[in-house]
Amino acid sequence: MTRRNDPIEALIELMARLPGLGPRSARRAVLYLIRKRAQLLQPLADAMQEVARSARECLNCGNVGTTEICEICEDTRRANGLLCVVEDVADLWAMERSGVFKGRYHVLGGTLSALEGVGPDDLRIPGLIHRLETEEITEVILALNATIDGQTTAHYIADQIGARVALSSLAQGVPIGGELDYLDDGTISAALNARKRF
Amino acid sequence: MTRRNDPIEALIELMARLPGLGPRSARRAVLYLIRKRAQLLQPLADAMQEVARSARECLNCGNVGTTEICEICEDTRRANGLLCVVEDVADLWAMERSGVFKGRYHVLGGTLSALEGVGPDDLRIPGLIHRLETEEITEVILALNATIDGQTTAHYIADQIGARVALSSLAQGVPIGGELDYLDDGTISAALNARKRF
Ligand SMILES: [Zn+2]
Ligand SMILES: [Zn+2]
Repeated sequence: MTRRNDPIEALIELMARLPGLGPRSARRAVLYLIRKRAQLLQPLADAMQEVARSARECLNCGNVGTTEICEICEDTRRANGLLCVVEDVADLWAMERSGVFKGRYHVLGGTLSALEGVGPDDLRIPGLIHRLETEEITEVILALNATIDGQTTAHYIADQIGARVALSSLAQGVPIGGELDYLDDGTISAALNARKRF
Repeated sequence: MTRRNDPIEALIELMARLPGLGPRSARRAVLYLIRKRAQLLQPLADAMQEVARSARECLNCGNVGTTEICEICEDTRRANGLLCVVEDVADLWAMERSGVFKGRYHVLGGTLSALEGVGPDDLRIPGLIHRLETEEITEVILALNATIDGQTTAHYIADQIGARVALSSLAQGVPIGGELDYLDDGTISAALNARKRF
């Protein structure tokens, strides 16, 4: 048993705030960390300190990394004219794991939502328009989740972009209500290869 | 996408080694931490550092805390003659949450297991015998999990203790194959109150 001002109790309470961990799994995790102090707890403390110090959002695309402009935006080999628009960084990572997309990304940072009061300026939609005006982009692939908000956002972006560039969206393989980050890599590959004109 | 030597990737790999978190939930957790850098990531890094520095096992009972002898062992109000033997600290915490036990604990650190080559000296069984010889203990409550290894361990301890003190075990309410840490507090209370002579 630990007191409220005990560092172990404090750690459990912080761990329980992580997505996917409740109080019980937080307690288990902390006991495990204490047992693996040298192998895991200390390296984890150091890694968190380092990420807290260095992590930042790419000023261009919204990806997270440790530089002002991320590696993908810096990589000239990826300037192939394709721009893949995703809701969040987890989706970008899921696309990268599929290994099939060789262009660049734009991370919206969410979806439009009347219910939650999220408008275009709360997302990176102005930044997207700016990139279309300044970068050499030939096709925008809307890789948004197959949710109502995701599809509303896709239609809004399609309206804004108009006939400026070719526009496509992931097609085959994305289940209704499905989220990209839950899909296996093969499904993402299939959806990307079978993308249809918007 | 992040490189292998990226601090964000390093943090994801460490987080994925926590019990209950796989690669996917580790990625989600790290993105969440980056978004909540000031409110969660930095405090968590500090709390881990502090626990890595200060956590230790009680030399008497095996509970974890930040002192050589834990609060429960130090608390003279808990020297009521009852000693509750549990497998691990998570079980001790579960007993404490039930709020019904007012004595002290002895944490074995596991169970005997022929399969995994765990013998009495790998557990805190010698320490338990020593406590029975030196502390004023009138009853030992074996609160081990209702698993084969747990019950084997209970029988072994019962043999070792012999007629030295009264011996009981949690009875009503612990389901077959169940583990204490999964039970609700009421079930633990009922099992403790209905404990039967071993
Ligand atoms: Zn970028
Ligand atoms: Zn103790």
